[in-house]
Amino acid sequence: MFLLHPQIEPWLIPGKNGFKVVLLAERSEALRVQVRCEPDNEALFIDMKLAGREAGLHRFIAEVPWDTGNEPTLYAFKVIENGRQSWLAGDGLHERVPHRDVMFRINRSTLPPRWVRDQVFYQIFPDRFCQGDPALQVRSGEYTYGSGRMPVVAKRWGEAINPDLPATEFYGGDLIGVRRQLDYLQKQLGITAVYLNPVFTSGSNHKYDTEDYYQVDPHLGGNEALAALSSDLKCRGMRLILDAVVNHTGTNHPWFNLYKRHTSEGAAHSEASPWRDWYYFDEAGHNHGWKGHASLPVLDYRSEGLREQIYGGPDSVLRHWMHAPYSIDGWRFDVIHMLGEGSGSTNNAHYVREFRRALREENPEAYVLGEHFNEATSWLQGDQEDGAMNYYGFAHPVREWLAGTDIAYEPANLSTAEFSAWLDSARGRIPYANQLTQFNLLDSHDTARFFTLVGGDTDAMKLAVTLQFAYPGVPSIYYGDEIGLEGGQDPDCRRCFDWEASHWNRDLFEHYKASIALRKAREELRHGAYLALLTEKDTFAFARFTDRAASLYALNRSAQACAIRIPVWKLPLKRANWVAAAEDALVSEEGWVTVIVPARSAVAILGEDKSA
Amino acid sequence: MFLLHPQIEPWLIPGKNGFKVVLLAERSEALRVQVRCEPDNEALFIDMKLAGREAGLHRFIAEVPWDTGNEPTLYAFKVIENGRQSWLAGDGLHERVPHRDVMFRINRSTLPPRWVRDQVFYQIFPDRFCQGDPALQVRSGEYTYGSGRMPVVAKRWGEAINPDLPATEFYGGDLIGVRRQLDYLQKQLGITAVYLNPVFTSGSNHKYDTEDYYQVDPHLGGNEALAALSSDLKCRGMRLILDAVVNHTGTNHPWFNLYKRHTSEGAAHSEASPWRDWYYFDEAGHNHGWKGHASLPVLDYRSEGLREQIYGGPDSVLRHWMHAPYSIDGWRFDVIHMLGEGSGSTNNAHYVREFRRALREENPEAYVLGEHFNEATSWLQGDQEDGAMNYYGFAHPVREWLAGTDIAYEPANLSTAEFSAWLDSARGRIPYANQLTQFNLLDSHDTARFFTLVGGDTDAMKLAVTLQFAYPGVPSIYYGDEIGLEGGQDPDCRRCFDWEASHWNRDLFEHYKASIALRKAREELRHGAYLALLTEKDTFAFARFTDRAASLYALNRSAQACAIRIPVWKLPLKRANWVAAAEDALVSEEGWVTVIVPARSAVAILGEDKSA
Repeated sequence: MFLLHPQIEPWLIPGKNGFKVVLLAERSEALRVQVRCEPDNEALFIDMKLAGREAGLHRFIAEVPWDTGNEPTLYAFKVIENGRQSWLAGDGLHERVPHRDVMFRINRSTLPPRWVRDQVFYQIFPDRFCQGDPALQVRSGEYTYGSGRMPVVAKRWGEAINPDLPATEFYGGDLIGVRRQLDYLQKQLGITAVYLNPVFTSGSNHKYDTEDYYQVDPHLGGNEALAALSSDLKCRGMRLILDAVVNHTGTNHPWFNLYKRHTSEGAAHSEASPWRDWYYFDEAGHNHGWKGHASLPVLDYRSEGLREQIYGGPDSVLRHWMHAPYSIDGWRFDVIHMLGEGSGSTNNAHYVREFRRALREENPEAYVLGEHFNEATSWLQGDQEDGAMNYYGFAHPVREWLAGTDIAYEPANLSTAEFSAWLDSARGRIPYANQLTQFNLLDSHDTARFFTLVGGDTDAMKLAVTLQFAYPGVPSIYYGDEIGLEGGQDPDCRRCFDWEASHWNRDLFEHYKASIALRKAREELRHGAYLALLTEKDTFAFARFTDRAASLYALNRSAQACAIRIPVWKLPLKRANWVAAAEDALVSEEGWVTVIVPARSAVAILGEDKSA
Repeated sequence: MFLLHPQIEPWLIPGKNGFKVVLLAERSEALRVQVRCEPDNEALFIDMKLAGREAGLHRFIAEVPWDTGNEPTLYAFKVIENGRQSWLAGDGLHERVPHRDVMFRINRSTLPPRWVRDQVFYQIFPDRFCQGDPALQVRSGEYTYGSGRMPVVAKRWGEAINPDLPATEFYGGDLIGVRRQLDYLQKQLGITAVYLNPVFTSGSNHKYDTEDYYQVDPHLGGNEALAALSSDLKCRGMRLILDAVVNHTGTNHPWFNLYKRHTSEGAAHSEASPWRDWYYFDEAGHNHGWKGHASLPVLDYRSEGLREQIYGGPDSVLRHWMHAPYSIDGWRFDVIHMLGEGSGSTNNAHYVREFRRALREENPEAYVLGEHFNEATSWLQGDQEDGAMNYYGFAHPVREWLAGTDIAYEPANLSTAEFSAWLDSARGRIPYANQLTQFNLLDSHDTARFFTLVGGDTDAMKLAVTLQFAYPGVPSIYYGDEIGLEGGQDPDCRRCFDWEASHWNRDLFEHYKASIALRKAREELRHGAYLALLTEKDTFAFARFTDRAASLYALNRSAQACAIRIPVWKLPLKRANWVAAAEDALVSEEGWVTVIVPARSAVAILGEDKSA
C-alpha cells in the first residue's frame, strides 16, 4: 500500500487549535484510515475522511489537535486493509506502530526563518579566499604562536600548504578581498549568502582560538572591513552569518591569559582572577582544553558572568555583532553540542535554547545554525537550532554512496537502498520546516574536498552537486569547490582560491551556475516536499514537489548509462508535462516516465501541473 | 557478519572512569574492529583488541570512557571487512552508522534496583480478588456516585459485570481477603511480589478518583488492613507496590470538593480556595478533567503547595506510605506521562525525576514503575523510571503476533520477523539494566484478558506465558490469568476470582507454576542477556544466557508441529549440554540444536557450560 503525506501546504496546514493533514493513498476501498497523535502524551486515533482524489491518489483528511504540553506535536497514519496494517511515519512505511523518534512532527511555535530556504550559501575561510590589501598580511616572524612558540610564516598565494604547520601559515586573504569578489559571488555564480569562518582576533590562521570577541582581526581588515562587507552585502540583498566559537577561547584571551601578554591577571594563573570560574579547572587546577588541546581552554557555563558576557547582556558577544553596523543574519555555532557546564556538555540543551532566545530577541528572523559532525536530531526539534551543518543527514551518506568512504575515511560500501533509507531516516526524525533550513554541504574546512575524495572525477562531483541543490535544505558551497579546487584532509582542504580563471574546471563551474539558477527558478526545490521514488543497485530517483510543480531527479552512479523508469503516479500532480534537457532521453507513459541517464550522472526532469 | 555484545557481566563491566566491553565476532581475520562512543558529545573511535575466543566466537575487548556530561553513555561497534561495514547497536546489526536512539546505552548512576529482577509480580484489583470480611462490603444504595448521582450496587461474588455500571458495582473484595490468600500466592503459585490497584478512599470500585490519599478505603479494610498485609508480606519475604494516582483526584477530594461534601471550601467553587492553584482551571474557570472526564480533575504541578503535598514534604503522599508500618517497596504511577504543569504534560520529565528522587530518598532500593500504554522509551533512560508497564515493548507485539489484534482491538497481521524486530527495537532503545526491571504483562485491568483475546485457546495462552516468563524483565500476572479467568474489555476484565478450584484451567495453572519455578531456578532468565536466534514464518527462537548457562526457547505459533533448527554456535557457551523436557524431541550437532515443537507451543531447552 503506497501512502504519501507531503509535509507542506496544502497537505499540512497549521491552525490555531490544531493542523489539517492530508494523507494520499493508492487505494481507498475497504480501508480504515486514521491519524494517530498524542495531544496529552497519550495516543489518540482520529478517523480520516475520504475527500476526493488528487491525480491518481485518494485523498483522506483530518484535523489533528496540537500537543499542548510538548513541542513538537507527533503524529503518524494508520491504515488497515484486510487485517493488515500499514503505518506512515516521517521515515516512510512501517508494518507496525512506528517508534516515536520517527513519527511526523510539527511545531506550533519555534519555527525556523523562511528566508533561509531561499539562500545559496558560500562558505569562506578568510585567509584563503582573496587578498584585498597586501599590507594587512601577517609577516613571517611577526609573532610566535602557541606553547611551542612557533614563528608565524607568510606564504605566497597558492603556494603548497605545509601539513606540519596547520595553524601558523598565512596567505593574506582578508575581508577586503571578500568584498572585492561580491560581483563574482553574486553575479557570476548566483550566491545569496556568505558564511565566514572565524574572523575575530587570534594568532592562528583558522581563528578558532579567539583572543578578542569584539575585534575582527586587524590582519583581516578589522571591524571596519566587516562593517563595510556587511553594508555591501545588505545593498545587494545578500545575507551574512559568522562563526561563533563560544565553547572555548584561545589561551591568549585576556580572560585566560596563559602567556601573560595582557596586564591584568587571567584565569590560567590565579584562582582570584575575575574570570577564574569562566573556565573549567579540575581539582588539580588544570584546564585540559577542548578535546585535550591545551591551546583551547574550555569555557564553563556554570558561571553567571560568562553567560552574561556570551549571550545574556545587552552587548554580549552574540548580540553585539547582530547590531549595526554589522547586523549579521545569524550565527554558525562551532562544536555547539560539546559546550555546557563543567568540563563537558552537561545541560547543553539549556544553553543552546538560551543562545536561540538571545539571537531571536535581537532579530526574530535570525538563523541559528549548529555545527555537528554527527547526528544532530535532538538539536533540531525546533527549540534549539534551525539547522545543522548537515554532515549526518547529507554529506556522510552522499560521501559513502559516491566516494565509498565514511567520515572517518574508512572504506564504506553503501547500497543505494541503504543510502536512500539513511536520507529518509535522518530527515524523518526532525520537523520538515527544520529540514528545509538544514545546511547541506559536501565538504568544509574540516574535511577533505569532495572532488578529491572522488579522485577528481568531474562527473561524480557534478552528480553530487545536483543532489546538493535538489535535496531539502539550503545548499552551501565551500569556497573553490565550484572551480574544482582540490584538497585532502585539514589543513590541505584550505588551499588558496585560484583566481586565474583559465585554471578552472569550466564544466564543473557551469554545472554549479546551472544548479544555482535552477534552484532559484523552481520553488519546489526550495520549499517543496520530498519523495524517494526508486532505488536499484546503482540508480536512485526522487521528486521535489508542491501542488503546482515537480522536479524529478534520476541519478546513476554506475559506469554505464541506464534507463530509469520512474513511478510518477505516486505524485499528486494531476496532469504533468515532463521535460528534460535532452528531450530524446525521455519517454512518458500513463503514470510512468522513463529516462536514459548517462554514466555517473543525474538527469533533472521538470513537470508542471497543466490542469490549472 | 554475526556480532554479539551481551549487555551483562563479564561482557560489560562498569568501572570508575569507564566500562569494559566485549564484542564477540564470527570471524577475526582481516577485520578492523572499533567501539564508537561520544564521551563529550563528539564521536570517538577506540580500536578493539583481539583477546582469544569464547566457544566458537572471537573475542574483542576495549575500555570505553563514561560520558561525563550526559547519562546514559552511548556506544556502538563498527567492523570493517573487505571495505564493507557492519555496525552493532542495541537493536541489532546495521550496514551504516546507527541512529543515536538505538545505540547501546549504559548508566553510571541512576541504576534500577536489582531485587526487582528476581520478582514474580501479581496484580490485584482489590474489589475482585478475595473477600475477607463481608461486613466491609459496600451496601446497595449506601451512597451515590458522580455527577449522575448513581446509587452504588452490591453484587454477589462472581455475578456478571454490568458494562453500563463500570464504577459503581461492588463485589466485596478487600485487603483482608488478599492477606488470607498469601499462602495461595506464595506457596501454591510461587508469587514474590504484589501490586495492588488503588486502595485509597474513593466512591468508585476502581479508586482511580482518590478522595483521601492518607486513608485506605474502609471498605477494603482501612489503614490497619494495609499495615497488616504489609507486615505479613514482609514476614514472608514478599514485596508490595501500590498505585499512585497523582495526575488527578476525584471530584470528592476535599481539595476539589465539587459536591460540597466537605465543610471547608474546595477548589471547584472558590478562587480563594487554598487548593485553587493545585488544579488546572482554564480562563473560563473550568477544570476539564483527565481526558475530558470531569470526574477526574487534573492536578497542576505549577503549584508549590501541591508539589510539597505529593512528593516534597516529609509526610507527603508518596513518602507517607513508604514509612512504617506500610513500608511499601515502590510505586506504580498511573498515567505518569500525562502529568505536569497546566492542563497537560508540560515539564513532565522534571516531575518524574522529582518523584524518583523522593522515593529514593526514602528507600534507595525503591522501585519506580510508570504506566505507559504506548512507547515509554524517553522515561526509561535511567533518570526517570526503573521500568514501565511494558505494553509497548512486550504486551502489544505478543498480542499482535499471537492474537492478531492490536491494542486498539484493530486487526493486525504481524509477521514473525516484524515481531522479533519490534522486541529488539523496543529493548534496544533503553539501558539493559532498565530492560531487566521492565514490568512484562500480558493484560491488566485496562485491557481484555489475553486468554479471551486468543479465544480461550489454552495452548496459545501457555505459549504467551512461556514467553512472558522467559523474556527480559519482570513478569506480572494479572489476578486470575493463572486459572483461565476470561474477560473482555474494561470493565469485563475485572471479573471476580473464582476460588472454586474445580473450575480452574488446571493445564494453564500448572504451566504458570512450572514457568515460575523455572524462572526462579534459572539465573539467566532473571539476569541474563538476550539474543534472537531465528525467525521464520511462524516460528521464533531466542536465548537467555549468562557466561555459565543458557536457556533456549523455540516457539511455534502455527497449527502444525515444526522442526526448528537453532544456531547455538552464536552463543558464547564453550561446551553446552542441551536438555529439553521431551528428550526425543531434541537433536544436537556441532553448533546447532534441532527441536520438534508441537503446534501452538513453546519448548524450553536448558544448557549448562560443561567446560568449567
